[in-house]
Amino acid sequence: MTRLADLVRAGDRAALGRAITLIESKRADHEASAQDLLHALLPDTGNAMRIGMTGVPGAGKSTIIDAIGSRLTGEGHKVAVLAVDPTSQRTGGSILGDKTRMTRLSVDPNAFIRPSPAGATLGGVARRTRETMLVCEAAGYDIIIVETVGVGQSETTVAAMVDFFAVLQVAGAGDELQGIKKGVIEIADLIVVNKADGDNIKRAEQAVGEYRAALHILTPAHPLWRPRALALSALKETGLDEFWATTQEFFATMRQVGAIEEKRSAQQVGWMWALLEDRMRLIVARHPALKTRLPELEAAVRAGEMTPTLAVSEITSALGLDL
Amino acid sequence: MTRLADLVRAGDRAALGRAITLIESKRADHEASAQDLLHALLPDTGNAMRIGMTGVPGAGKSTIIDAIGSRLTGEGHKVAVLAVDPTSQRTGGSILGDKTRMTRLSVDPNAFIRPSPAGATLGGVARRTRETMLVCEAAGYDIIIVETVGVGQSETTVAAMVDFFAVLQVAGAGDELQGIKKGVIEIADLIVVNKADGDNIKRAEQAVGEYRAALHILTPAHPLWRPRALALSALKETGLDEFWATTQEFFATMRQVGAIEEKRSAQQVGWMWALLEDRMRLIVARHPALKTRLPELEAAVRAGEMTPTLAVSEITSALGLDL
Repeated sequence: MTRLADLVRAGDRAALGRAITLIESKRADHEASAQDLLHALLPDTGNAMRIGMTGVPGAGKSTIIDAIGSRLTGEGHKVAVLAVDPTSQRTGGSILGDKTRMTRLSVDPNAFIRPSPAGATLGGVARRTRETMLVCEAAGYDIIIVETVGVGQSETTVAAMVDFFAVLQVAGAGDELQGIKKGVIEIADLIVVNKADGDNIKRAEQAVGEYRAALHILTPAHPLWRPRALALSALKETGLDEFWATTQEFFATMRQVGAIEEKRSAQQVGWMWALLEDRMRLIVARHPALKTRLPELEAAVRAGEMTPTLAVSEITSALGLDL
Repeated sequence: MTRLADLVRAGDRAALGRAITLIESKRADHEASAQDLLHALLPDTGNAMRIGMTGVPGAGKSTIIDAIGSRLTGEGHKVAVLAVDPTSQRTGGSILGDKTRMTRLSVDPNAFIRPSPAGATLGGVARRTRETMLVCEAAGYDIIIVETVGVGQSETTVAAMVDFFAVLQVAGAGDELQGIKKGVIEIADLIVVNKADGDNIKRAEQAVGEYRAALHILTPAHPLWRPRALALSALKETGLDEFWATTQEFFATMRQVGAIEEKRSAQQVGWMWALLEDRMRLIVARHPALKTRLPELEAAVRAGEMTPTLAVSEITSALGLDL
């Protein structure tokens, strides 16, 4: 592990790949080694700009990331692109296509693209991606982009592991403005309207105006940052400078007051409790005394034939955990 | 318990009060009896319109509830007003004033007003209010209004126990539109702008327009209900009819497709898991092996010196709950 840690720190791509494979493995001994490795690497983590991006397939995530990412590597940055896709197990990894869609980054020595780990639960997928992010930071990647297609709660999950969260919308998908998924506008630091090109520009600008109006009535998550909205064209590569300038402005503003560190500390503790809850659910579901009983309890509660309080008491007793 | 259950079913106010006191008690034997009572009453629950309302102190919640509630009792309904105030323990119950502020309902034989139960955690307060709601339903109250001042996560908590959630905003609090708290716009079925009277009417109508625009870009929680916004004056009692008509329209629309039942089933299961998490946190915090260790683990995770995964493994081992 010490040797692997050294190689990762040295930026050895093969070692980075091995480390991530270890993190993604479900073998108990691998999980233990992965934790040893992470523990050794922790002091070298936290030095990247952690950027999250969500958008439906076809919104242009890969094109935007490829364009901006290759500019950044051109400026001497090292860029890692990770993905969170809770369906990747079933679909075999809908993000696997990234490598082929990110034509520039995929051949860029200063870029590292990793598809979503497979996993039974979003929590499991997220844990692996978070830990992969840490290893990438230790390997010297100073810009981490985590993308998600926005299945289930994946946007909230990704927002909870990054510093800055961008929501990619598409203008011109019919006359109706593309609705923002429940809960997502709350976590957006920036709303990006793509496909502002050709005869779509007016519609895109109008969409930006409507999103701004909506953001305006929400109390910002941080007093120093009122979420923005802007239009761009990934196809024509227009508006990318503004996108990146806004991102940098966010980090500059937040770093001044130590808000990034604060946010990360809170995210880490939140992550710990989320993991514990995940683990507890697994323990409850697998416990011999509950394996068959839990579905019955859930059904009774769902049908309103049993109070949740009673069901919970039975569960904690079965676990031998009464207060 | 059977006797008390019968008296509650018969609509005996004194019995209802005793039942609620039992539910609110923290004595283990009382908790057990309360669960027996609830179990006996469950078949008689679920027949009310469950309405939630949030608004800052001074927004006019009590005035609106008093005005609408007394109309409803006049039409033959039985109205129960409950409150969720996570600070009620510290402040001695900021909602206690309701009885005095609801001048009509407080003397109405067909109305029942219960201040917020005190509690160390929002979860605890919410559990007692949910169970109180069930007892009120068994006692024949067919309209339950749960109000909250919106401290911490209380809006989300109340929204999770009602069918319909109204967010009360005030126009004219300065030129700035009153911002909607993070997360709250997502759960609003209706935004009510109060104090649309005198020279404030124009401002209120304008606020309604801005809230509508914001609601417009959000994907509705249910395809059949796009959240509304309307203005009223609790003082002049104007707009109350529209408020109630909208509420009734919501229930009519949702009941047609069985969406109320669906929502309640999901709420009940969600409530069960939330309770379990609450209980687990208490168990973890009080466990002898973790009492002093947990804060250390949290601190290490917060500081980024330990991975949450490692901390969680230590916690589950200490509980003797390894997978």
